[in-house]
Amino acid sequence: MKYIIIGAVAGGASTAARLRRLDEHAEIVIFEKGQYISYANCGLPYYIGNVIKDRNKLFVQTATSFAARFNVDVRVSTEVTAINPSVKTVSAINLLTGEEYTESYDKLVLSPGASPIRPALPGIQIEGIFTVRNVGDTDYIKGYVTESKPQKAVVIGAGFIGLEMAENLHELGLEVSVVEMGNQILAPVDLPIAAIAQKHLREKGIQLHLNTAVTGFEKEDDHLKVQLQDKAALDADLVILSIGVRPDTKLAENAGLKIGQAKGIWVNEYLQTSDPDIYAVGDAIEYANPISGQPTITFLAGPANKQGRICANNLAFGNNQKYNGSINTAIVKLFDLTVGAAGMAVKHLERNKIPHLTATIHGNSHAGYYPGAQLMTIQIAFSPENGQLLSAQVIGGEGVDKRLDVLSSVIKNKGTIYDLIEFEQAYAPPFSSAKDPVNMVGFVSENILLGGLKVIECSKLDSVEANAALIDVRTPTEFAGGTIEGAVNIPLDEIRNRLTEVPTDKPLHIFCQQGMRGYLAQRILVQSGFRNVTNLSGGYLLWKTYKDEMEQAEAEVL
Amino acid sequence: MKYIIIGAVAGGASTAARLRRLDEHAEIVIFEKGQYISYANCGLPYYIGNVIKDRNKLFVQTATSFAARFNVDVRVSTEVTAINPSVKTVSAINLLTGEEYTESYDKLVLSPGASPIRPALPGIQIEGIFTVRNVGDTDYIKGYVTESKPQKAVVIGAGFIGLEMAENLHELGLEVSVVEMGNQILAPVDLPIAAIAQKHLREKGIQLHLNTAVTGFEKEDDHLKVQLQDKAALDADLVILSIGVRPDTKLAENAGLKIGQAKGIWVNEYLQTSDPDIYAVGDAIEYANPISGQPTITFLAGPANKQGRICANNLAFGNNQKYNGSINTAIVKLFDLTVGAAGMAVKHLERNKIPHLTATIHGNSHAGYYPGAQLMTIQIAFSPENGQLLSAQVIGGEGVDKRLDVLSSVIKNKGTIYDLIEFEQAYAPPFSSAKDPVNMVGFVSENILLGGLKVIECSKLDSVEANAALIDVRTPTEFAGGTIEGAVNIPLDEIRNRLTEVPTDKPLHIFCQQGMRGYLAQRILVQSGFRNVTNLSGGYLLWKTYKDEMEQAEAEVL
Repeated sequence: MKYIIIGAVAGGASTAARLRRLDEHAEIVIFEKGQYISYANCGLPYYIGNVIKDRNKLFVQTATSFAARFNVDVRVSTEVTAINPSVKTVSAINLLTGEEYTESYDKLVLSPGASPIRPALPGIQIEGIFTVRNVGDTDYIKGYVTESKPQKAVVIGAGFIGLEMAENLHELGLEVSVVEMGNQILAPVDLPIAAIAQKHLREKGIQLHLNTAVTGFEKEDDHLKVQLQDKAALDADLVILSIGVRPDTKLAENAGLKIGQAKGIWVNEYLQTSDPDIYAVGDAIEYANPISGQPTITFLAGPANKQGRICANNLAFGNNQKYNGSINTAIVKLFDLTVGAAGMAVKHLERNKIPHLTATIHGNSHAGYYPGAQLMTIQIAFSPENGQLLSAQVIGGEGVDKRLDVLSSVIKNKGTIYDLIEFEQAYAPPFSSAKDPVNMVGFVSENILLGGLKVIECSKLDSVEANAALIDVRTPTEFAGGTIEGAVNIPLDEIRNRLTEVPTDKPLHIFCQQGMRGYLAQRILVQSGFRNVTNLSGGYLLWKTYKDEMEQAEAEVL
Repeated sequence: MKYIIIGAVAGGASTAARLRRLDEHAEIVIFEKGQYISYANCGLPYYIGNVIKDRNKLFVQTATSFAARFNVDVRVSTEVTAINPSVKTVSAINLLTGEEYTESYDKLVLSPGASPIRPALPGIQIEGIFTVRNVGDTDYIKGYVTESKPQKAVVIGAGFIGLEMAENLHELGLEVSVVEMGNQILAPVDLPIAAIAQKHLREKGIQLHLNTAVTGFEKEDDHLKVQLQDKAALDADLVILSIGVRPDTKLAENAGLKIGQAKGIWVNEYLQTSDPDIYAVGDAIEYANPISGQPTITFLAGPANKQGRICANNLAFGNNQKYNGSINTAIVKLFDLTVGAAGMAVKHLERNKIPHLTATIHGNSHAGYYPGAQLMTIQIAFSPENGQLLSAQVIGGEGVDKRLDVLSSVIKNKGTIYDLIEFEQAYAPPFSSAKDPVNMVGFVSENILLGGLKVIECSKLDSVEANAALIDVRTPTEFAGGTIEGAVNIPLDEIRNRLTEVPTDKPLHIFCQQGMRGYLAQRILVQSGFRNVTNLSGGYLLWKTYKDEMEQAEAEVL
């Protein structure tokens, strides 16, 4: 059996290695148009930022070591220019020698990946405007930073990679601005969570420009001008374009393979394209999202690696292992914060008209009495019918990745909020609390789902009924330190004795600092005859950050 | 409705708080024989070790604050001496005033906890021999340490609490010895994992005495002699007794409630005792282990808290929520190491004759190319029939708690090794790798379960066939640095060309440093016609630590 694999980074290299393990005697040829195989794509921003100091560390395998270990014919700097499915050959060109040739296959695997979008803006070709996708880009940026000593950087696009670049350039001593067309950073998370991250970035000295499009670039003296719509241009010595990627489907399209609705290479559940002898994996394929059922393209290393294994299993043994799609679990370190998401954001659930309820809590990374505990915020969404977990977003310091991993595992397995309640965390004081934040968000969700506990998200507090009463159940000291306009203060521990002060003729909106005391007050009020009582999800803490960020973004638009 | 709750630490306090939230108008009385309620039991060793500096931090709630917030009648320093189920009363004595009285209930909740075992050894009453269970014990030890300035401590019992005490006393500057009757520390984990922890403790300067029973204590001059069976006595200024706890079932027993096989208070799936008006939670109850089905007592704070919530739900709404039992997820920090377990250890699976396969891997806490990655070891056991995950043990530094939490979640939900394969970890270089250690142990398990990959555990390597060939597939440099006696060296990357050197007439045992290269060599050999090929699980790394520890323990017995 002769296999050809096109693309030797995450998906392609995984497929090749697994194929060899399963079939010692197969002929395996892998083409890679770049110079490097199986490199640490996700490490590139950190190499630029000097966090990873040794360039050699970026290479998980070299072409030589991979060929030796897996007995694979690795052809780097070689581009496949065409696939001819009818005769089962590919045409290739050695980019170094110019030699062109065809190579036959029994089975073909496509792992072409995706390319960074480089919009056709005026001045886009000026020197100093970079994308960050591969080792070549990275060497180029690193060289430019070392030689030209840029002072000011503008990062265009506030996604995961853009923000990793912003942090790394800031750590190198550059003054960094981030420009984002949307009204928030980190599109996969919802606004209240993004607001926490935005606040942190501003505090760290990153200039954020939201709701703003770049209209072009100009060279002025020795620096660049990044022109913005309706706003003053930004000076830059270095521009990072990080506005997204597009799947590389040209080869597949030209070969007549089916391209799907999301404009990725269509594959069936066995990762087989519309041609039964051609499989595809990685950033270029589209697959039904397990939550929405809609075709989606996932640009993540983890799923690509897992697809490689499944693809190889199906090639070696015949189609026997299904790919179940990705829930797009992703995470990013932003200075002292970590933020991540799994499943489908609330805004996307709304857009897809998928019924859902939400719960938001704050919790300690480990027992509060043990030194170093850090507060994190967890937001989940779940089905109002059966409690199935639909999404999770976590932001904070220590332990965010852990909670997200547990929540991701539950979403992936189509688990419910009851699994969060029953979750047995590994508890000792340095690691968790007797009730882990994952348990807590489960408890709150159960209260909402079964207990009829009404909550309101901070993003919706502005649109509540005009006649509603707002009650701050924090202490008088907390109240005096700042509250929501129009709120009256009745501390939780006094509320049982001050029920007569609570209006009986209005909807009641209760809040405390983090949400817990508000919930306790709500329980007291509901059982004391007050019918229409709502607790502010995430409390004043979340609302304040959200509100400040909304005002900041609005001020920027003006 | 009038509720009485006996015991106001984890389970009892949780029940009371939840009951109040569900029923604002109930009368709730909670009795606690100690002075404190709802305190941070698990923090006590760290308060003694001065990691937690402020004693007030140990108190999650005070009797006064709890009473105010939850409108609960909290009676501390009050012991319930009898329950009279036929008339639904309890007899109580105020330990401060001596006042005795009875109190009636509609529903009663028992949360009596467990007491440390204090064996009737000669000299056990000598001053300086302590148990660590409650705030009183802790104050006593702390005072003793401050005033008597002990130099040498002996900890008896190498369980989780004993070892936390050993670490904390060591950090205070004491010379610490640990005495353990068993042949390993940390009974809930299997020996190869415990061996890694033992090695670390010895390196940190803790003296371990395994396979040794304490036979008594003597006072000699100004210090204690801890007498050991067949070994020289140990000098001590301070002795911590940490050989286990026993459920406090006396009240329940005297009231005629059913005591179960495991000698805990019997409860049904709704946490109801044999008397329908009496419920029980926490360390004193026994419940069917979800894996073995056998009645088991769980001495952990997390399950106690969760039981409290379920118990309150069942009291308030009628029995509607089942308790599903605990998989005993537990974790401990030991200096720079973290070690934890969930589910049923392999030795217990063997004892219970539960069919299982095992897989062991080593993996990085995060991407190897990003600074600070630490190696961890994961051992899992799973069903040979359907891959159901039965246990997980993890040891290492950073990220151990995270992997254990994910594995715990899968065990709890009766998930399989396929859930580990599909697990979508939150991956960015500071947090994980494109293939997380959880994925890796899933992959290895699938290879074992479906691929017929034979592995041998390091604890069983000594008992292999006498005529087996041992092949070390590491590099010549690694081989020269130490190998297993009798092994020949054929490096992985040369094995395809040196197949003629591989014996054809013997079973082959392959090993490398961590297990991965051994696996690749195994794949090559099996497909090259060698039939009987086994890979050493966890590689030389795990075997060497295990072997060294076995020899150390054996030397100690002599």
